[in-house]
Amino acid sequence: MPRYRLTLEYDGSVFNGYQAQDNLPTVQGVVEAAILAFCGQAIRLQAAGRTDTGVHATGQVVHADLDRDWPARTVMNALNAHMIAAPVSVLACEIGGLDDRGEEWHARFSARERRYLYRILNRPAPPALDKGRVWHVKKPLDVDAMQAAAQVFVGHHDFTTFRDVNCQSKSPEKTLDVARVTRTGEEVHLTFAARSFLHRQVRSMTGTLAEVGAGRWTLEDVRAALDARDRAACGPVAPSCGLYLTGVGY
Amino acid sequence: MPRYRLTLEYDGSVFNGYQAQDNLPTVQGVVEAAILAFCGQAIRLQAAGRTDTGVHATGQVVHADLDRDWPARTVMNALNAHMIAAPVSVLACEIGGLDDRGEEWHARFSARERRYLYRILNRPAPPALDKGRVWHVKKPLDVDAMQAAAQVFVGHHDFTTFRDVNCQSKSPEKTLDVARVTRTGEEVHLTFAARSFLHRQVRSMTGTLAEVGAGRWTLEDVRAALDARDRAACGPVAPSCGLYLTGVGY
Repeated sequence: MPRYRLTLEYDGSVFNGYQAQDNLPTVQGVVEAAILAFCGQAIRLQAAGRTDTGVHATGQVVHADLDRDWPARTVMNALNAHMIAAPVSVLACEIGGLDDRGEEWHARFSARERRYLYRILNRPAPPALDKGRVWHVKKPLDVDAMQAAAQVFVGHHDFTTFRDVNCQSKSPEKTLDVARVTRTGEEVHLTFAARSFLHRQVRSMTGTLAEVGAGRWTLEDVRAALDARDRAACGPVAPSCGLYLTGVGY
Repeated sequence: MPRYRLTLEYDGSVFNGYQAQDNLPTVQGVVEAAILAFCGQAIRLQAAGRTDTGVHATGQVVHADLDRDWPARTVMNALNAHMIAAPVSVLACEIGGLDDRGEEWHARFSARERRYLYRILNRPAPPALDKGRVWHVKKPLDVDAMQAAAQVFVGHHDFTTFRDVNCQSKSPEKTLDVARVTRTGEEVHLTFAARSFLHRQVRSMTGTLAEVGAGRWTLEDVRAALDARDRAACGPVAPSCGLYLTGVGY
């Protein structure tokens, strides 16, 4: 039973998140329906990360165990053909193989790094072409201040302040490897990488860093919020529309 | 009666083109309705270029003659507020003033250069996030060959082969100043600049250059097509979804 590794791109704005739910459009539901249509198998996908409603992906990774030994390119083309009406696309398909521990590769359990991008459109005019793809912040943001404050998050911390109250993770402790804030034309890009993230951690950190960019919070305020280990100390949570799961490292 | 110069961004995929038509959604119709809602004036906008159905803009320029002397920023913010539900945005608003001939500045008649970008997504997988924003070409395109062939179009030519049969322009002769083909990651970008273009000229040239990129046409075939001055000699016309009016020079 070969395991296929699928890299997915999707527009999260039309889905109720990644994870399958009865009677609601989800990314998982669309891909599983395409697999059923392609080869008649009703399977459950495993995914590297469960993205929320409205969150996009350019590099989500999932796996599907299929009964037959299809060429990987056949699987990719067939699924893309079946999903042509939905904003989900299989960018790449490979055979799973073994992971770096020598165990059968698994989309979720073999993942060593998740990477996210948060896009802020930082200009007076609202987005016309990127509506639903960026967070629109009108006032100019101080990117240098945001970049400096973002470094408060890097390293091993208790991120209780920056996780959703409904987060299912047993521990609030995570190690953030990368937090980078840069300006690209009219956009401010926040890039984060870690082995794993808590629920809404990226949006919570981004919303807080935007307060720094707007001059309402200082770097010390961010440090105090992290140290508080209290959800109530978090800044506003950035909206889902600007967030992209861009890649998974194995 | 001050003349306001508006720079517009829009998603052409939901409009029946730029130009106002009765009972059909158009960019012009949306902006004129916003002006009516803002200040009660029923006016006709003048535009630098009339984009076709499905064609986008990141730098369309139009003008509106308003009765009252509003601050430019007030006009921009008010129109954006009225258009918040439509994928049209006023990026900038300025007072028209005089053009470089010393005459009253006019969005259409003062324009000295129009700039277009054509985006091809050149990868096996269809677009999920950029559906309707790019032309999807699966097979790898030879960008160097396209760039070389594009130079055939530069200069003063009779572009009869590359204009729509319904083109209203009196003369088929135009001077193309810039034709550039570059690769940016998975995308191939074609950039064109001229004082003015014939109807569907950019899409006709792009579709023909894509034939060169696919190896089906040579540079000499492009030259022969141009020399033929015959619409039937044109390659396939590229779809509207990849085309952007990116700017107007005055």
